Amino acid sequence: MLRNTGQEPAPDAPGDLRAIGAHPDHWYPVAWSREVKPGKTFATSFAGEPIVLVRPSAGSVFALEDRCAHRQVPLSKGVVNDCTVRCCYHGWSYDASGRCVDVPYLGKDKLPNGVRSYPCHEGNGLIFVWPGAGSPKAPPGTIGASADRAYKTRRFGKIVRCHYSFMHENLMDMNHQFLHRRTTGKVAPRYRGRRAGPDWFEVDFSFRRPDEKPPLGETVIVGSFRSASADSRDLMTVRTEYPYQTLRFWTAGDKPVLHVWLGYTPVDAAQRSNRTFILLSVRRPKIPGLLDVAWPVLAWFTNRVFAEDCAIVEMEQAAYDSQGGDWNQEVFPPIRELRKLLAANGRPPAHETS
Amino acid sequence: MLRNTGQEPAPDAPGDLRAIGAHPDHWYPVAWSREVKPGKTFATSFAGEPIVLVRPSAGSVFALEDRCAHRQVPLSKGVVNDCTVRCCYHGWSYDASGRCVDVPYLGKDKLPNGVRSYPCHEGNGLIFVWPGAGSPKAPPGTIGASADRAYKTRRFGKIVRCHYSFMHENLMDMNHQFLHRRTTGKVAPRYRGRRAGPDWFEVDFSFRRPDEKPPLGETVIVGSFRSASADSRDLMTVRTEYPYQTLRFWTAGDKPVLHVWLGYTPVDAAQRSNRTFILLSVRRPKIPGLLDVAWPVLAWFTNRVFAEDCAIVEMEQAAYDSQGGDWNQEVFPPIRELRKLLAANGRPPAHETS
Amino acid sequence: MLRNTGQEPAPDAPGDLRAIGAHPDHWYPVAWSREVKPGKTFATSFAGEPIVLVRPSAGSVFALEDRCAHRQVPLSKGVVNDCTVRCCYHGWSYDASGRCVDVPYLGKDKLPNGVRSYPCHEGNGLIFVWPGAGSPKAPPGTIGASADRAYKTRRFGKIVRCHYSFMHENLMDMNHQFLHRRTTGKVAPRYRGRRAGPDWFEVDFSFRRPDEKPPLGETVIVGSFRSASADSRDLMTVRTEYPYQTLRFWTAGDKPVLHVWLGYTPVDAAQRSNRTFILLSVRRPKIPGLLDVAWPVLAWFTNRVFAEDCAIVEMEQAAYDSQGGDWNQEVFPPIRELRKLLAANGRPPAHETS
Repeated sequence: MLRNTGQEPAPDAPGDLRAIGAHPDHWYPVAWSREVKPGKTFATSFAGEPIVLVRPSAGSVFALEDRCAHRQVPLSKGVVNDCTVRCCYHGWSYDASGRCVDVPYLGKDKLPNGVRSYPCHEGNGLIFVWPGAGSPKAPPGTIGASADRAYKTRRFGKIVRCHYSFMHENLMDMNHQFLHRRTTGKVAPRYRGRRAGPDWFEVDFSFRRPDEKPPLGETVIVGSFRSASADSRDLMTVRTEYPYQTLRFWTAGDKPVLHVWLGYTPVDAAQRSNRTFILLSVRRPKIPGLLDVAWPVLAWFTNRVFAEDCAIVEMEQAAYDSQGGDWNQEVFPPIRELRKLLAANGRPPAHETS
Repeated sequence: MLRNTGQEPAPDAPGDLRAIGAHPDHWYPVAWSREVKPGKTFATSFAGEPIVLVRPSAGSVFALEDRCAHRQVPLSKGVVNDCTVRCCYHGWSYDASGRCVDVPYLGKDKLPNGVRSYPCHEGNGLIFVWPGAGSPKAPPGTIGASADRAYKTRRFGKIVRCHYSFMHENLMDMNHQFLHRRTTGKVAPRYRGRRAGPDWFEVDFSFRRPDEKPPLGETVIVGSFRSASADSRDLMTVRTEYPYQTLRFWTAGDKPVLHVWLGYTPVDAAQRSNRTFILLSVRRPKIPGLLDVAWPVLAWFTNRVFAEDCAIVEMEQAAYDSQGGDWNQEVFPPIRELRKLLAANGRPPAHETS
Repeated sequence: MLRNTGQEPAPDAPGDLRAIGAHPDHWYPVAWSREVKPGKTFATSFAGEPIVLVRPSAGSVFALEDRCAHRQVPLSKGVVNDCTVRCCYHGWSYDASGRCVDVPYLGKDKLPNGVRSYPCHEGNGLIFVWPGAGSPKAPPGTIGASADRAYKTRRFGKIVRCHYSFMHENLMDMNHQFLHRRTTGKVAPRYRGRRAGPDWFEVDFSFRRPDEKPPLGETVIVGSFRSASADSRDLMTVRTEYPYQTLRFWTAGDKPVLHVWLGYTPVDAAQRSNRTFILLSVRRPKIPGLLDVAWPVLAWFTNRVFAEDCAIVEMEQAAYDSQGGDWNQEVFPPIRELRKLLAANGRPPAHETS
């Protein structure tokens, strides 16, 4: 009888990667712009910290700690007045900086302390906050190909019940095509090389279909380009640029036919769940309107692939939870390097308790 | 960026009020009389101690520990025979004092020890037990106006998932009218004074409606008196008389137009839920039958106000649970005093573990 | 007021019996044969260890640790190829010994370590595994009367949310007939004697019906034999032969009219639930086909008795969980001896942590 050797971590393993928090000194997406209506609040979170997004009827979205300083109930249950949010319980009111500006039964000279505010940025159809204590860097500029009219972009995602690191590893290890065998058919990935920097890492793959035709969903994305081009090469690059991830796919030329951007925002304090935000941009073929007609097929296809990925990473998290540690027995060198990168850029648990 | 200063307790804070247990040396309501049918048992509890109420076909209700001494299964699943309750499993039988009076397969000389019994009192449509080790005081006499034929009384309530102290604070801080804005319209409460004793504390309020008419539910309760009286004054007194609470409302004269009594009985061992029992008595207007006709409106109105209160106190408890402590930043002096009173009369956690 | 004296364990109590694990050095049933289809996997467990059963299209069932050595996801989600199972994620493949025999993107000379395999045996319509580290004993031969054509056998059972020891005690203490009063009518059991060995213990009972007729279900099982025989004696023997249990009932002669075999396999790591497997064999009466006609009545009757037993043992477990210990106040000497036997043959918690 053999013991699952995953019990003993590999010699170069970065401690317990699943115990390392996403580093808060970055801009994290916490909502789609469309979710925060004018004159309304929206409840979200970063790693267990409740955050309320407030969009005044006129003016920019702002982000506060989602707890009234008085009795700690969510401000997101409150009422937006001009550029303030009023708690639903005793009516305490806060401005965009978190300052308490009114308590209906107290003089203006006696106002109590307020709540924490978060730097907030809206762009690319997303609302970002900066949850860290460090001074905010410049917010993300244009993401992927979402602003390029040569592409059509789909925005989707959901809360996935796993640590963000499982998401990075899943996407970067293209050897997992067996998982999608019922959706994509038989695909043989081939590792082509890697490049690295202090906070980024990227891997190249090519693909071969041993004996089958690609499914309709894939044809919609890459088919027309591949056939039309002479210098066809089928290259995919998956890149982790901490804390985000991108996937680009080229069939020919410099412009990728597919450009995907992914953000993973921890939801709960233990970071055993993350909200995944995906911007998937597909290059428009030469025939006008073709991509729009095929869009529902592409949506179905990408939803299904994403659902298969979510199911498996949630099983990985469940195994971690029951085993009480990371028994991963990684054999693919790029993933071993990715794990080190995530560990080096994240926040170890010691930091959180000290 | 501001930090929510609720993190640091106020200098005169009574430790962690939500960790202080309801003192067991009092009479606590554990069921409505109508819930305990003749010849039947009823399962209830006090702070995690399971209690079975037994009403023999003839004779008074009695209260025992709801566990058979033998295999610890609930006696409330058993059978009532005369003035005993027989366990459903192996048929062990107990009398009103908790003594084991029969084991079908054992001689009467070999009977094992029994179970704990609780002093039990029935009155005002409620069944009370005395869960403490101290010698029982006289049980509550007539509660509020429920025995006065000049009033009509509604009995309602439910299990609320919060510490009993949130209930006391909610009712006594009338500045929370903003919470009920959709039910009661705009009401401006005004603090009028307070009085205190070692185990009681009461606060007076008056009310003003800046610009609106009262809703139908409120008119049913106070409307006809207010208009009919010359010495109108609209006074409300909220009183905590440990461990109960009352609310009285006068429009004129000595007799309140509204008299509410509330009992909060901890359900679970951590006391993070309580069963609230409410006796709401409304003075009958001069026109006979008017109150009876309006009763369904009043029931709808009071249910809705109570539901709004339950929702918010459960949010307070949820915040306490996730924050791991009481971050309350209280600014209203009467509530600060109420918190001290509840802490002083309750049972600190040290007592429970020693 | 009395305190439930169950709080203090009896002087000869075997520590906390509910903290003692089922000893893994035995053959435990983990599935019915019919649950594991050819070419398919089946997910089961022993005491929190996930186990996958694999039945190749041709060949014997085998049992592996239900986690891929790579990323710990269940192999039971994978694909059966010939005599191997392939993980659904990156396609790692294992044979019946747990050896990793293929990683699609790795040379055959670089294959990583595999997973644990379990000795596996199929017989009597059951699949057994040997979860212990000790050398496997001979697997169970013919169970009860299930292979005897003079009997008709029913196979049933379910996951019961309690420690296996509650199951043994429930069946062996026939004084619990009061529990089944609504199903079986009034039955007065009488203890007749006991016999013991190092890993077995058995108790005899006879029964008397004070004033009532037996229910239809019981008549189906024993009725025709009882009336036809001269040396009628109505003897029941309940036997624990670690870790299994049997119940035999004779009305006359050597061959029991009823022969029941029960296996209790711990499901979760804390062993607070078990999967109960029951083989209930009823001797065929002389009239051919009578038992087959009556079978649905017998199924209904035995299901109902079993459901009553499950409900009560789950209440015992719930009491244990809330009391944090075994407050059992046992007065029936055979059950006190049974408890000692289960403790002596089980695995104490110290063993598990060291």
